[in-house]
Amino acid sequence: SANYKVAVLPGDGIGPEVMAEALKVLDKVQAEFGFSLELSQHDVGGIAIDNHGTPLPAATLAGCEAADAVLFGSVGGPKWENLPPNEQPERGALLPLRGHFKLFCNMRPARIYQGLEGFSPLRADISARGFDIVCMRELTGGIYFGLPKGREGTGANEKAFDTEVYHRFEIERIARLAFEAARGRRGIVTSVDKANVLQASILWREVVIEVAKDYPDVTLNHIYIDNATMQLIKDPSQFDVMLCSNLFGDIISDEMAMITGSMGLLPSVSLNDKGFGLYEPAGGSAPDIAGQGIANPIAQILSAALMLRYSFKQEEAARAIERAVSETLAAGYFSGDLYSADAAHPVQTTAQMGEQIAARI
Amino acid sequence: SANYKVAVLPGDGIGPEVMAEALKVLDKVQAEFGFSLELSQHDVGGIAIDNHGTPLPAATLAGCEAADAVLFGSVGGPKWENLPPNEQPERGALLPLRGHFKLFCNMRPARIYQGLEGFSPLRADISARGFDIVCMRELTGGIYFGLPKGREGTGANEKAFDTEVYHRFEIERIARLAFEAARGRRGIVTSVDKANVLQASILWREVVIEVAKDYPDVTLNHIYIDNATMQLIKDPSQFDVMLCSNLFGDIISDEMAMITGSMGLLPSVSLNDKGFGLYEPAGGSAPDIAGQGIANPIAQILSAALMLRYSFKQEEAARAIERAVSETLAAGYFSGDLYSADAAHPVQTTAQMGEQIAARI
Ligand SMILES: CC(C)[C@H](C(=O)O)[C@@H](O)C(=O)O
Ligand SMILES: CC(C)[C@H](C(=O)O)[C@@H](O)C(=O)O
Repeated sequence: SANYKVAVLPGDGIGPEVMAEALKVLDKVQAEFGFSLELSQHDVGGIAIDNHGTPLPAATLAGCEAADAVLFGSVGGPKWENLPPNEQPERGALLPLRGHFKLFCNMRPARIYQGLEGFSPLRADISARGFDIVCMRELTGGIYFGLPKGREGTGANEKAFDTEVYHRFEIERIARLAFEAARGRRGIVTSVDKANVLQASILWREVVIEVAKDYPDVTLNHIYIDNATMQLIKDPSQFDVMLCSNLFGDIISDEMAMITGSMGLLPSVSLNDKGFGLYEPAGGSAPDIAGQGIANPIAQILSAALMLRYSFKQEEAARAIERAVSETLAAGYFSGDLYSADAAHPVQTTAQMGEQIAARI
Repeated sequence: SANYKVAVLPGDGIGPEVMAEALKVLDKVQAEFGFSLELSQHDVGGIAIDNHGTPLPAATLAGCEAADAVLFGSVGGPKWENLPPNEQPERGALLPLRGHFKLFCNMRPARIYQGLEGFSPLRADISARGFDIVCMRELTGGIYFGLPKGREGTGANEKAFDTEVYHRFEIERIARLAFEAARGRRGIVTSVDKANVLQASILWREVVIEVAKDYPDVTLNHIYIDNATMQLIKDPSQFDVMLCSNLFGDIISDEMAMITGSMGLLPSVSLNDKGFGLYEPAGGSAPDIAGQGIANPIAQILSAALMLRYSFKQEEAARAIERAVSETLAAGYFSGDLYSADAAHPVQTTAQMGEQIAARI
């Protein structure tokens, strides 16, 4: 039977706690669906700085290379906040991993779960309409990696610079994936750009329009980034797939996550063109609640489900996990972040949430 | 007595309608406060394309040069949407005006007016807390104007690029204005950057920290742009002055305007180091309601008040306008955008709003 190698990188803060629950659930599905997972754990982020002096040690990178997919927890915390930006856990681990494995396609779904509308920071009549959006973010290009990038001169004229650059092939491949995703959903791609100011956005828009010709069944809209941040608040239900450059996707995916009001439920995946992927929850390491066993493990568990779907093509197993999560929530089991007085059961710990979900596989 | 020259650029859509009301109010204050305004009207934006073939005709620019300040309406509309980006009304008029007059400092206040909380798209308990924020946006630098900017190559490797660049002196002068503004307010500057990715942001943060030393009475916080778009939705009341680069300010100021729910009330000013300024409403040309006499003229009227304050140092007259606006709203006079069934008076036209406000000067 199939055997998959997974590099497990729990990281910092709540990372190790929620990862333990994801592994519990994965353990259950591999028995059930007849495949096996070979796990190897590695330090990443702050704990890697503490143990090895660098947020992405060579051994961790080698462990990821030897694997078929990476299951990532979260990194960062106050302890490492005053390091130079380049050496900080988030930047020093995530950007090199994305670059090294050429993970150009980042997908972050965000939706309001039925019954949880009240947690959304949007006005009741807006959140009641609900929404279900996927952000397709280009992840290895643009101003994150563009050259030249640097600093020059002294005194008042000292300057620092970054280059926003996109090649036709980079835009084309992410656009194609956005249109494919829209086909399996509501059939709308909204491309986010700033074509009234940026040359890179003008090319972006041109290429997206060309790719759209191969998908006559999908509706293509264009929106400026400034307007997009407004429309997401005013009426998120108008969006289906949002196609974004690296920087605009960073902004849009976080705003999208926030307006759900339930960030603890949101997984994400970063893929390369070979199906190798890095799977991580949308939220951060939440150092304020770390170590207390109260964090919501669902985003990590759903990230594991996406890993089964996209990297291992185990669609049934992925669905089983997603179903177990939905059933657990529908049965009224909530961790503190989503608990309200009218819930059927008392507030659940991280481990209890994991058990409820595993039991429903 | 003092005489000020104002270049009036009504532009497109609702621009001419709301401008007429601003002029009505200005007419009233000049008599009352003993100064005189010399107005010259010029085409800008779409109407300038129609009449002169370009969104910013030489005669309009000359008219602005001969003036002490520019009162700007709004530009753009569906008629000109399919022109190449460079020739479109918004881009082709606003960017050259900003560049030509070196209007490096853009200030956009956004707050929830008492009694209008219900229009905010935020959840009732969040909008009930209210907020009052000023976005200080650097307006002549960064990726908008940075060089090189262009396009190269062919085929799959064709690329387009823009340069995000900031000089120390550019950051310093806008930072200083942000700290000055905070002194007259709640004493908090939140600097928005992406210092975990951009070199320009690292320099930005360094310079802001240096400038802060001259303002020990002001609290300085730093926030990443992605987190800023989230926090604005979760709890806008935590912010006072938000200090932003050109691109991040474009995004933040629009998001801020949207969460007030009353964009028709928001003025803005763009200043150079000589006090010359361009004053315009935060909203757009709203072509969907243009020509019907129903647009809210308050943002345009408050923009005129800011002109009196910042370019002409007529603080009393500026306050008189602001007071008249507040009193008109408090008395229950609303245009359609802010009207609700429990208002004291029937829905007001653009002209009626202007009259109510002028009558209260
Ligand atoms: C940590 C940071 C470099 C990263 C990014 O900007 O991409 C993060 O915000 C994200 O979205 O994954
Ligand atoms: C029209 C456009 C070029 C402009 C900008 O991006 O600055 C507008 O969005 C604004 O904020 O004034």
